[in-house]
Amino acid sequence: MAPYVTEFDLYEPQSTNDLQYPIQKIAIVGSGSWGTALARIAALNAAEKKASFIFQIFSGFDHEVRMWVREREIPGQGLLTEVINSTHENHRYLPDVSLPHNLVAVPDLVEVVKGATLIVLVVPHQFLTPVLDELSKPGVLAPGARAISAIKGVEVAGDEIYTFPWLIEKKLGIPCSALGGANIAMEVAQSEFCETTIGVPSSDDAALWHAVFDSPMFRVHPIEDVAGVSLSGALKNVVALAAGFVDGMGYGGNTKAAILRIGLLEMAAFTKEFFPSSSSLTFSHHSAGVADLITTSFGGRNRKCAEAFIKSGKSFAQLEHELLKGQKLQGVVTAEEIYKFLQARGRTEGYPLFTKVYKISFEGMDPKTLFDDL
Amino acid sequence: MAPYVTEFDLYEPQSTNDLQYPIQKIAIVGSGSWGTALARIAALNAAEKKASFIFQIFSGFDHEVRMWVREREIPGQGLLTEVINSTHENHRYLPDVSLPHNLVAVPDLVEVVKGATLIVLVVPHQFLTPVLDELSKPGVLAPGARAISAIKGVEVAGDEIYTFPWLIEKKLGIPCSALGGANIAMEVAQSEFCETTIGVPSSDDAALWHAVFDSPMFRVHPIEDVAGVSLSGALKNVVALAAGFVDGMGYGGNTKAAILRIGLLEMAAFTKEFFPSSSSLTFSHHSAGVADLITTSFGGRNRKCAEAFIKSGKSFAQLEHELLKGQKLQGVVTAEEIYKFLQARGRTEGYPLFTKVYKISFEGMDPKTLFDDL
Repeated sequence: MAPYVTEFDLYEPQSTNDLQYPIQKIAIVGSGSWGTALARIAALNAAEKKASFIFQIFSGFDHEVRMWVREREIPGQGLLTEVINSTHENHRYLPDVSLPHNLVAVPDLVEVVKGATLIVLVVPHQFLTPVLDELSKPGVLAPGARAISAIKGVEVAGDEIYTFPWLIEKKLGIPCSALGGANIAMEVAQSEFCETTIGVPSSDDAALWHAVFDSPMFRVHPIEDVAGVSLSGALKNVVALAAGFVDGMGYGGNTKAAILRIGLLEMAAFTKEFFPSSSSLTFSHHSAGVADLITTSFGGRNRKCAEAFIKSGKSFAQLEHELLKGQKLQGVVTAEEIYKFLQARGRTEGYPLFTKVYKISFEGMDPKTLFDDL
Repeated sequence: MAPYVTEFDLYEPQSTNDLQYPIQKIAIVGSGSWGTALARIAALNAAEKKASFIFQIFSGFDHEVRMWVREREIPGQGLLTEVINSTHENHRYLPDVSLPHNLVAVPDLVEVVKGATLIVLVVPHQFLTPVLDELSKPGVLAPGARAISAIKGVEVAGDEIYTFPWLIEKKLGIPCSALGGANIAMEVAQSEFCETTIGVPSSDDAALWHAVFDSPMFRVHPIEDVAGVSLSGALKNVVALAAGFVDGMGYGGNTKAAILRIGLLEMAAFTKEFFPSSSSLTFSHHSAGVADLITTSFGGRNRKCAEAFIKSGKSFAQLEHELLKGQKLQGVVTAEEIYKFLQARGRTEGYPLFTKVYKISFEGMDPKTLFDDL
């Protein structure tokens, strides 16, 4: 008999040698911690599964993987791209991790994606629009290119909500997948065993992205649910704030587990309500769902800042200034967007945990009321 | 629109006043940490929802709740039951927690269950058989009595596996429910917010056991899956050992979340394969499933001993002697029983995580192989 997991794996991973595609070229648009960690894996795989001529069909990857890095001068060391390319390390965002020599930092976005057929988008939310403006200009993208989004968050406009893969597909006119899972960047970069989920629009995307990222310590499971993977990556940060509130109030494991369970159900219900073609299995069975929620709610910075919010009595704006050098905390941004969207739809009462996280974060609601009426 | 959770709640909790039953009397068979914590909640509820005469139908609870305590002399203090009944505290198993005065420790088992219609069984696995022998004698149980099991574990005999509620029903001839959830005893006793799941054979059992245990900080969700709740309570301890191995090897949150995800799927698949009437929702949606697994894998003693097993290189037998005063570690007992059962059924290859936990625990397999072929 087969092992039990196959029923949940919509696609059987293929060997790279089975790929009936022309040579594939990978580009990474983004070079933060997560972008660099993904770039490292993709470059290692590209070097290993290099282009070869089998039965007169080219298959495999172009050796060089380019990564977009915003250029700047590093005092006393020269240009940032030159530092990364000579030291093979991203000192600022992924310190002490050796990067493969076939991963090349490039300052010009058009140059990064030139000829690329597989484009990984992993920029902060607020940079996505200018990046898509640039990529959508005529002649910038290669024919047959595909994208994958590893960006956390959602786009809300009034009573409408959009995933990033949907926006990317619409703007660039190319298929876009979503990547998410229990993937704290530094642990991935240190080759600790983990899993990730790729939501894909077709079996071709499944095979290609699996080949780009899958490795013995980074197991990739493709599923046919782009919206579910995207939404889970956004909503888990809202639940992680609630988990941080629990920690901040000094409650133990039972309470935190209860909040995670209730949060996971709200995440799945929200996604099913507003993206009806998504699957609740994404949340209950896959790394992008339950596993990502667990690791984020025990180890992530949303949890940490939410704990500090309770203990210090400071606002999130103050904490972002003090703890995150002014960067926005993803969970707080998403909690506000989700709340405003639910309000616009008249559906806040259907999502009591999301609603309370917003009200505790922004309206001074007593955090002890978190457990009422859940 | 209704909140999203109702689709998963098979039974709507009823008000105690709606119960169309004669007066109910609660007995607690067991007085360890968990037994005492459950007894405390039941006694608080019994005092509050006391028997009343409404529309000529008696409903509610007899004020007194009896708890079975094995008698012994406490040096310098007298008999244990007398100490508990005069101090209203179980110093050994639930120190510094005040017990309600209507909870009475009684040394004689027959006396404890005399007239009881709702019997909570919460003894260690190895004491269940003698307890059932005593309770099954003619005239010991009141007519119409019901039981609930809060005992963790399973009974394996060759290629057969039984849940405790099944054994209790068979031996006593009364309906038996199962209780399980993210419920570390001391946190429950300190009234920290948590949830629990009750697997019930009928809606009458759902209403009654909900009335016994539900309270604002201990939310009870009855579901129609006795086997799922029982099995989850047993199997989560095996996965918690794997989580402890991960901690012992020094891996981070991604790896632990991956092991929990894979473990949860094995738990659900095992239960579905060998108890086909069970529901996989019990694992993915309820406190007895995902939430209990989380709290046990971060805070429980199975995790802790498994971490020590890796770091110290000592056997579990040694660790039980040193850390648990010779008590058996539930996860280790269950890992062995499950492995032997799977072997008898020729199904070890279908459950690679359970199998590896056994082999690492008992056959000296390298813990680093935990991630291979999962």
